[in-house]
Amino acid sequence: MNVEFINPFLEALLNVLRTMAAMDAQPGSPEIKKTNISSGDVTGLIGMTSDLTKGTLAISFTEAAILEIMQRMLGEAVERIDETVTDMVGEITNMVTGGAKKILSEKGYHFDMAIPSVVAGKGHVIRHKSKSPIINVPFTTEKGDFFIEVCFDD
Amino acid sequence: MNVEFINPFLEALLNVLRTMAAMDAQPGSPEIKKTNISSGDVTGLIGMTSDLTKGTLAISFTEAAILEIMQRMLGEAVERIDETVTDMVGEITNMVTGGAKKILSEKGYHFDMAIPSVVAGKGHVIRHKSKSPIINVPFTTEKGDFFIEVCFDD
Repeated sequence: MNVEFINPFLEALLNVLRTMAAMDAQPGSPEIKKTNISSGDVTGLIGMTSDLTKGTLAISFTEAAILEIMQRMLGEAVERIDETVTDMVGEITNMVTGGAKKILSEKGYHFDMAIPSVVAGKGHVIRHKSKSPIINVPFTTEKGDFFIEVCFDD
Repeated sequence: MNVEFINPFLEALLNVLRTMAAMDAQPGSPEIKKTNISSGDVTGLIGMTSDLTKGTLAISFTEAAILEIMQRMLGEAVERIDETVTDMVGEITNMVTGGAKKILSEKGYHFDMAIPSVVAGKGHVIRHKSKSPIINVPFTTEKGDFFIEVCFDD
């Protein structure tokens, strides 16, 4: 997998949170996963294709993290993961892939993005069906954690 | 959304279950969803792109249904949704999109498929972030139910 494909997603995610939620999340060290599973409470998933490769992106939030993001975006407290929250996670996923697509395009890589799906369910686990390495980047905030996973087939 | 895009997925899914698990699942009436959410215990999700449209596919199984499918495929009982099961759901998702891609290609529609992701977690809910109708087709078996959801942007 071309590591050049990863940074645009991290950059876009930080940018979206900064712009939309006035939040500076702290990225941890990227980790290459093969067998581990990741778990979150609400996850945006989107597929990507290009002439060269295909891939998938997951952005998965703990309940604490997404409720804090919602509060900062809406200016009022949200009590639980409801339809407003899953809508917003879909929107965040769209904005992150849109931002990353733009950066990648400037580097000469053209990607098509599919439709995001959002999964909600306490502590659900996510696995990507690929023989290629899966890059997981954890993020911490004062209120809760989230992570981004990107996987591209060779 | 072009309804011609839906049948190939149903046909491919029935064919995969018949071939791999000697199972004849009964499809129910396709339902157009806008706001409802669907819930399953293990779900395969994959994104699709083409020059004309983009889409997403979810195949979501109750625990009872997927454990029966596993038993028929492997010839031995599987007790719970573990890594073997999520692997197989990823594989089924791949086979269904591969089969549908072939049928669609014969009709003159070329789609690229992304990498499948599998989500496991008791009663998780799935929502597709699209303004277009989402087609849900329920399937029943003697042991448990599952459903397929397909959504293509106009």
